[in-house]
Amino acid sequence: MDAHARNAYSAVTPRIADAVRKIAGAKNVLVDDDKIQAYSHDETNAEKYGHMPELVVLPTKAEQVAEIVKLANREHIPITPRGAGSGLSGGAIPLFGGILLSLEKMNKIVEFDTANMVIVAEAGVVTNDLANLVQEKGLFFAGYPMSLQTCMIGGNIAENAGGGKAVKYGVTGRYITGLELVTPTGEIVWLGGKLSKDVSGYDLKQLVIGSEGTLGIVTKAIIKLIGHPTAKSDLLVLFKTARQAIDMVPIIMSKGIVPTSIEFMDQLSIITSCRYLNESLPYEEAGAMLLIEVDGTNQDQVESDLIAIGDLCEEHGAIEVYVAEDRNTMERIWNVRRNIAEAFKVYSPVQSLEDIVVPPSSIPEIIPELEVLSAKYGMKIPCYGHAGDGNLHATLVKEPSMPMETWHTAEVACLRELYQITRRLGGKISGEHGIGMKRKSYLKELADPVELKLMQGIKRAWDPNTIMNPGKIFDLADA
Amino acid sequence: MDAHARNAYSAVTPRIADAVRKIAGAKNVLVDDDKIQAYSHDETNAEKYGHMPELVVLPTKAEQVAEIVKLANREHIPITPRGAGSGLSGGAIPLFGGILLSLEKMNKIVEFDTANMVIVAEAGVVTNDLANLVQEKGLFFAGYPMSLQTCMIGGNIAENAGGGKAVKYGVTGRYITGLELVTPTGEIVWLGGKLSKDVSGYDLKQLVIGSEGTLGIVTKAIIKLIGHPTAKSDLLVLFKTARQAIDMVPIIMSKGIVPTSIEFMDQLSIITSCRYLNESLPYEEAGAMLLIEVDGTNQDQVESDLIAIGDLCEEHGAIEVYVAEDRNTMERIWNVRRNIAEAFKVYSPVQSLEDIVVPPSSIPEIIPELEVLSAKYGMKIPCYGHAGDGNLHATLVKEPSMPMETWHTAEVACLRELYQITRRLGGKISGEHGIGMKRKSYLKELADPVELKLMQGIKRAWDPNTIMNPGKIFDLADA
Repeated sequence: MDAHARNAYSAVTPRIADAVRKIAGAKNVLVDDDKIQAYSHDETNAEKYGHMPELVVLPTKAEQVAEIVKLANREHIPITPRGAGSGLSGGAIPLFGGILLSLEKMNKIVEFDTANMVIVAEAGVVTNDLANLVQEKGLFFAGYPMSLQTCMIGGNIAENAGGGKAVKYGVTGRYITGLELVTPTGEIVWLGGKLSKDVSGYDLKQLVIGSEGTLGIVTKAIIKLIGHPTAKSDLLVLFKTARQAIDMVPIIMSKGIVPTSIEFMDQLSIITSCRYLNESLPYEEAGAMLLIEVDGTNQDQVESDLIAIGDLCEEHGAIEVYVAEDRNTMERIWNVRRNIAEAFKVYSPVQSLEDIVVPPSSIPEIIPELEVLSAKYGMKIPCYGHAGDGNLHATLVKEPSMPMETWHTAEVACLRELYQITRRLGGKISGEHGIGMKRKSYLKELADPVELKLMQGIKRAWDPNTIMNPGKIFDLADA
Repeated sequence: MDAHARNAYSAVTPRIADAVRKIAGAKNVLVDDDKIQAYSHDETNAEKYGHMPELVVLPTKAEQVAEIVKLANREHIPITPRGAGSGLSGGAIPLFGGILLSLEKMNKIVEFDTANMVIVAEAGVVTNDLANLVQEKGLFFAGYPMSLQTCMIGGNIAENAGGGKAVKYGVTGRYITGLELVTPTGEIVWLGGKLSKDVSGYDLKQLVIGSEGTLGIVTKAIIKLIGHPTAKSDLLVLFKTARQAIDMVPIIMSKGIVPTSIEFMDQLSIITSCRYLNESLPYEEAGAMLLIEVDGTNQDQVESDLIAIGDLCEEHGAIEVYVAEDRNTMERIWNVRRNIAEAFKVYSPVQSLEDIVVPPSSIPEIIPELEVLSAKYGMKIPCYGHAGDGNLHATLVKEPSMPMETWHTAEVACLRELYQITRRLGGKISGEHGIGMKRKSYLKELADPVELKLMQGIKRAWDPNTIMNPGKIFDLADA
């Protein structure tokens, strides 16, 4: 942490707290430790990354957000926007204290415009609620993070969330055609619109997407919907080795077949999740599995794609290809995939969940490297994730027997090596979780300094007093 | 033009010209008026927007581009990047003289990586050459500008080109996963990679796409390819009125059918293009036509979609639905659509080709407004374009009898009204051609001042001496 920068901020005095109450209403302002505790961390390790805010405000309107930001900017108080707190990089943690601004009460659907196939939602709408609502009209929100049960639209946008269907549908940003932003100086501006094309100046909307709340607070979004796929089918394919499984990704993709998902699980991931769920997949003989989903509007097409994929897998040494015949079986298999992270938390709560991304054809080179790292640092490194788009959740898991002191050193050293390998393969350190505070020192080390300088130039131009989610993506002193 | 700013730039003296020759080789530097004349305009009206450069350089390597930009930055000389010069907003015109940097000699394919389904190309590669090359491997570049025979990849990126297949496939930006940029201070940086996901800091790549060469010069791009659609079919649908035709767009789209293209032509456009081509479409009775293309990998699916669309059109009052049975008929129909702009140039070379974009369901409201404007200002305003994504080429065409003096005043007043109508309907003034120098005064008038300030903040941060394509998107004095 940057002591100089921290000292440079003003404290949230009783006068400031009163001013915030006046803007947002007293019932929407929290200052007691027991009430604000829950806002001090996200899904990263609270002990390591957590930090208490001085005040939590839950505004109900963009105008309130703007007034609060103006106040923070004028008084030089750091302000940290937060959605559901389901982030995995510490992006919503108030690193320098100050004001934590939660969007949770801005959870209304503003407009459902079926003629233009868009829905306008406030940032605090839970992704799954939106997904269910549009499905009633036969429509589909194709941004589909794995945490959709809890995460919020604003957080999806801040992180440009990826998720389970990105191989076919791309990530969140593709579906955001407009957004309402409160700038770091407290102005409200609409970027984009209900438009599928727009080159009227720089694409600021796309810049804001994935900027982790450092360039302003998204208060509303216009979300493009597509027709809900009416046909869907899943394959579970078992391989002897992880290498064989991963090798399939470029083989399938280069045939021009575009599955909705190609999820990879190594043996350790499968066993751990199955045990956690009391599930009995035939994992004993399998070194790795692929879970492949195909969807569309034509059941015949879906089935013919699935058969082609199954044949390719068998040609390339799959032990077994299972077709999920019914919805129940599909759900069981996906449940195993979705619960891997949770299952490892039970084994050992201390871990570092990563989301490196590499060119898909380089994935096979990652696996043996992970085995080397695992042996070298004495930790489990299960690997699973969105193999279809080269995005792997290699996860460093502390053995329960390893002393915390050893872990702290080993984690940093192992992450550094992992990230260097990723860079060498033409990859990046985060495909969907973001940099936040967790990865900023590695970004500084690994990114091109010119690229960092360009990012920081934007940050400085938009947020001259560095009050908007400071200490995320890059260190304050560098920005 | 901003006289103060123009005076603020240094001239390209013989010393500077020699320095450029030393960097790029004497044979790649042009200074004679007859040789640089061709670089003084693009596809906008040369008389109105044209401006001579002082020197033209045709570098062959990114390193040369970087050295030239460094020189320009140091000496405070404006530098204007240029691809094929097929732009429609004056983006490649050297408004303040200085150095015109043409990418035309940087026309190599750097790498064709079929395992990752990407191709790496220099900025000067002609789009159609790339499209043909990848098609040989069964792959497809889905960015598909109407000018693909001549335009270049670098220009497509600078303008975030849209085009004929954007309804289904989106615009250029979706397919650019990485690019090599020479910054306005002459540094070479790679943004992105062969990655389908990347949230490792701000998405600078996406910011550069569509920034019209004002934030640097793109020298190479990594382009994502998809499987080449093997099935394709076209419908030509005749309607009594433009309104009926345009009303079909939301009707089709909200059924969840995603055609590749929904192109609209009003009667004036059809007649003018058919006469120009000596073509005999059955246009006499039709007030407007839709040209609808569906593609995919499954011929049955394509045909069933096409039948569904045809049925919808007939239910909603279409006069006639023609299916293009063979490739030759398809080509004839598309040729009519492609040649509208050219045909009107023969009728009257003085015109203003626009590309307003509105939410698709608002398109019907545009047509009667155009009729009012046409009568009020005494000019033809044919309307055609990419109706499926709300992007319309309303084109102001001077009657041959109208004096130029009258035209100049009428054009400005009519454009202003057209853009105000567009804004009122939730639209933007450019969907695919860009702002350039042609629309910057209107952007200033119509855009949210906060949005403009945010754009200009980025420009200032990245280009502190305002040497990179100055006078585009916004006036120099504002940036």
